[in-house]
Amino acid sequence: MYESYWSKIGNKCDITFNGDNSLSYFANGKRLCWFLESKLEEQIKRLHNVVGNAIVDDHYIIVGTGSSQLMQAALYALSPADQLEPISVVSATPFYSAYPEVTNFVRSGLHKWAGDARTFQKNGPYIEFITSPNNPDGVIREPVVNGDQGKLIYDLAYYWPQYTAITSPANHDVMLFTISKCTGHAGSRIGWALVKDKEVARKMTKFMEISTIGVSKEAQLRAAKILEVISDSCLDPKMENFFEYSRSLMTDRWKRLRQVVMANAIFVLQKYPLQYCLFTKDFYESHPAFAWLICNGGEEEDCEKLLKEHKIHTRSGSRFGSESRNVRISMLSRDEDFNIFLKRLMAIQGPTNGN
Amino acid sequence: MYESYWSKIGNKCDITFNGDNSLSYFANGKRLCWFLESKLEEQIKRLHNVVGNAIVDDHYIIVGTGSSQLMQAALYALSPADQLEPISVVSATPFYSAYPEVTNFVRSGLHKWAGDARTFQKNGPYIEFITSPNNPDGVIREPVVNGDQGKLIYDLAYYWPQYTAITSPANHDVMLFTISKCTGHAGSRIGWALVKDKEVARKMTKFMEISTIGVSKEAQLRAAKILEVISDSCLDPKMENFFEYSRSLMTDRWKRLRQVVMANAIFVLQKYPLQYCLFTKDFYESHPAFAWLICNGGEEEDCEKLLKEHKIHTRSGSRFGSESRNVRISMLSRDEDFNIFLKRLMAIQGPTNGN
Repeated sequence: MYESYWSKIGNKCDITFNGDNSLSYFANGKRLCWFLESKLEEQIKRLHNVVGNAIVDDHYIIVGTGSSQLMQAALYALSPADQLEPISVVSATPFYSAYPEVTNFVRSGLHKWAGDARTFQKNGPYIEFITSPNNPDGVIREPVVNGDQGKLIYDLAYYWPQYTAITSPANHDVMLFTISKCTGHAGSRIGWALVKDKEVARKMTKFMEISTIGVSKEAQLRAAKILEVISDSCLDPKMENFFEYSRSLMTDRWKRLRQVVMANAIFVLQKYPLQYCLFTKDFYESHPAFAWLICNGGEEEDCEKLLKEHKIHTRSGSRFGSESRNVRISMLSRDEDFNIFLKRLMAIQGPTNGN
Repeated sequence: MYESYWSKIGNKCDITFNGDNSLSYFANGKRLCWFLESKLEEQIKRLHNVVGNAIVDDHYIIVGTGSSQLMQAALYALSPADQLEPISVVSATPFYSAYPEVTNFVRSGLHKWAGDARTFQKNGPYIEFITSPNNPDGVIREPVVNGDQGKLIYDLAYYWPQYTAITSPANHDVMLFTISKCTGHAGSRIGWALVKDKEVARKMTKFMEISTIGVSKEAQLRAAKILEVISDSCLDPKMENFFEYSRSLMTDRWKRLRQVVMANAIFVLQKYPLQYCLFTKDFYESHPAFAWLICNGGEEEDCEKLLKEHKIHTRSGSRFGSESRNVRISMLSRDEDFNIFLKRLMAIQGPTNGN
C-alpha cells in the first residue's frame, strides 16, 4: 500500500551491500543485545523521539525477526523458570489470531494459552497481551485482568500516526513494534522490543540467541536506512512527510469504505472516537490497518463464507476468539486490490434490501 | 577468515536495495515454501550441482534464519503430534553443543533431549542428529542408533570442499546447510533444508510461518548473490575459485597448527583419513572448521581452564557431551587472531618437558 511513497522517494533509501559485509555473527559484543546493529538502535530511538509514541531512553532495545519472534522471546523471558505448571497467557477477545498459536505451537511447558482475558479467573501469575490499537478491531486497549501477579506485553505494532492519534508516549515494561506495520516493509522481517528490566531484556536476548543466533544484518541495516528516511521526512520540509502521506491514504480508504457500508443494510463497522494527536497537533479519528466488519445478514451467520462467495478474502471473527458474524479485512492492500474489494462489497445485496 | 576473498572480489558481489523492495511477506505464494525467494532457490540448486555435495532435484527447499531455526523446524515436523510423551532427540558424543539447548529451551512437549546416541536404548520413535563432518571433531559420521523408528536429521553445515573431501552427493530425507560455514557470511543468518517428504516440508514451512512469518528478503537475495558468485568462481577460469582459495587457507592453518601441537607434549589432535574428492578430483585430508584438541596435561584435566590461563578462548569438551580434557578451537578466526592463538599455544610448556 505504501509502495507509491517508496517509489517516489527515489534513491534516498538505497542501500548497497558489498561482498565482505555481514561476515560476523556479532554487531556489538559489549552490548546486552550483542547482535543489534548500532545504526538500527540509533534510528529506532530517533524515530520514537520524532513521533513521540514511546519512551525509549530508559529501555533496552532487542531486535527480532519480525515482532512474532519477539512475542515468543517475551513469553520465554516472562515465564517463571521454576514452576511445574506453564503460566497462563491471555488476551481480551477479539485478540490477534497468532497469539494462541505462537504460545502453544511447540507445546511449551513454560507457557500455555488460556484464552479471553475477560473471562480469566485463575489466581497467581499470568501473562496478558495488550494490543493497542487492537488487531483485529483497531480499538485502543488497556489491561483487562489487573491481577497482582500479571506480566504485560504491549503489542504496539499499530501505534503509529497513520492509524491512530498519538495521545502520549507509551511507557511500559515490555513494548513490541515492527517495521512491517510502520513503513510497509513486511518482507524485511524486522521488529523490536523496548524493555525496561535488564533481566527480562537479557532473557529475551538469550531466546534470540538460541532460536536464530541473532537477526540478519542486511535486514537490520536496511531497516535502519528506512527508519532514517522516515524520520528525515518528518523533519525536512522539502520531503513529503511519510506519516502525513500514509495518513491521508488511510483516511481516504476508510472514507470510501464507510460510504459503501453505509449504503448497505447488511454490514456495520466499528466506530472510533476523535482524539487529539500530539504528533500531528490535530484531532484524528483512528483509521486502523484492518476493518472489523459485523454482518447483519439475517440468517447468514458466517460472514467469512458470505464474503468468500463474493470473492472477498477475509479472516473470520472465530479466528480471533470472537463470533463468525465478524470478519477482519485488510486495509493495507494495493490500490487496485482495494478498489476491487470495494466494488465487490458494493455489489452484495442484503435480504433487507428486498432482493 | 574468508574476508580477504570477499574484499578481493570487488563489486561483483554488490547488491543494492531500493526503497520499494521487500514490501510483501510473500515471495512466491503458489510454492510450498511461500517465503523462499526464487533467486535463492535457483542459486542453492546451482551450487549443490556445481559442488556435487547434495542431491537437490527431488527435494523441497525450505529457507531459514540460519540453520538453527531449521533444526527447530525439523524437530517440529518430525515429532509425532499425537503422542503424550515427547520424542527423544539424540546425537552421538561429542555432539554440537547447541542441540540440547535448541531441543529443550522452551520445554517443548513435542521433543526432549535424550543425550548420547551411542547409549540410547529406548524402544520406539526417536530423532537423531547426524552432523557430518561433525562439529566439534570434524569426523565423517553415519547414524548410530539404527532403530526401526528413527527419524534422521543430517546437519551438513561443513560438507563443503574447503573442509573435507566430497565423496558423494548426500541424499537423505532431511539435510541442513548454512551460508555461514560455506561462505563465511554468518551475519546474514541464512540456512536451508533439503527435504524429501512433502508433508515434512509442509510442516517445516508451517514452523517458519508461526515462528517468524518467513525469512528476511534482503538476507535471502543477498545470499542468492553470494552463492551465485561462488558458483561462478568455480566455473569461470578468470575468477579465483572460492573453494580452492578457502581450501588452501584451511590447509595452511592446519599444517601450522599440527606443527605447533607436534612440538608440544601436552596436546594431541584428531587425525583424518585421506579421501578422494569428487569436486577437486584429488585426494584430500579433512581440514575442519574446528580443531578438537585433547590435553594430556598430567594432572590438569580441565583443558579449557588450562588454555584460558594462556588467554586462549576455547569451548570445553563437556559442552559437547564429552570430557573436559578435550576442547574445541575455531579454525575460522581472522588471520591476526589465528597467529596470536598459535603463538600462545606454542608458549605452553607441559610438565613432561621438564619445566
